[in-house]
Amino acid sequence: MTPINLAEKLSSFTAPWSPHIVGAFNGHDLMVVKVLGEFTWHDHPDTDDFFMVLSGQLFIDLPGGTVALNPGEVFVVPKGMQHRPRAVVETHLLLIEPAGTPNTGNPATAATKIRI
Amino acid sequence: MTPINLAEKLSSFTAPWSPHIVGAFNGHDLMVVKVLGEFTWHDHPDTDDFFMVLSGQLFIDLPGGTVALNPGEVFVVPKGMQHRPRAVVETHLLLIEPAGTPNTGNPATAATKIRI
Repeated sequence: MTPINLAEKLSSFTAPWSPHIVGAFNGHDLMVVKVLGEFTWHDHPDTDDFFMVLSGQLFIDLPGGTVALNPGEVFVVPKGMQHRPRAVVETHLLLIEPAGTPNTGNPATAATKIRI
Repeated sequence: MTPINLAEKLSSFTAPWSPHIVGAFNGHDLMVVKVLGEFTWHDHPDTDDFFMVLSGQLFIDLPGGTVALNPGEVFVVPKGMQHRPRAVVETHLLLIEPAGTPNTGNPATAATKIRI
């Protein structure tokens, strides 16, 4: 019965590229994450990848070019498409992925998602 | 390859309680909607219901009480739970529901979702 305040959740940690689970929706995790610098190129063979920028600016490199996302903007990377998120300034995101999806596309290298 | 700018999408229509589809994610519609006044009590027997407030303030009446959502806040109504969204000021939302979900819970009374 309590709303999920995304900014409040984001204020509770500092580590970049560390997805924190804040809720659940139809078998998906709702997550917030802080990003800065370049992530690795990867894909998710079984799921689309939802990004929404809450603050800052996110670049998503794709095989065909780069998408720049500002606050209030959403981009969905289609299932199976290689992508590399990166940010020049600290950027806060809402992410949605099926529960258990490895953030790098590979369970061996994936970050542990922390529930807050 | 183009980000979805939610405010820009919202500026393209005025009708309240008219969900507009702005994208797709894992078989779900990503929608924006303007709300003002009271919606009907309803439930969705087969899906959770994702609400994120972009501007304004949303109240969601539930059997056990009322949740108040401000900008940057998210609430997921669990599958099968009766709820009534309402707003005192014009409020803009991001909604996520499986494609084809009737917004009233009943195909006979549901709004047609417009793709923009």
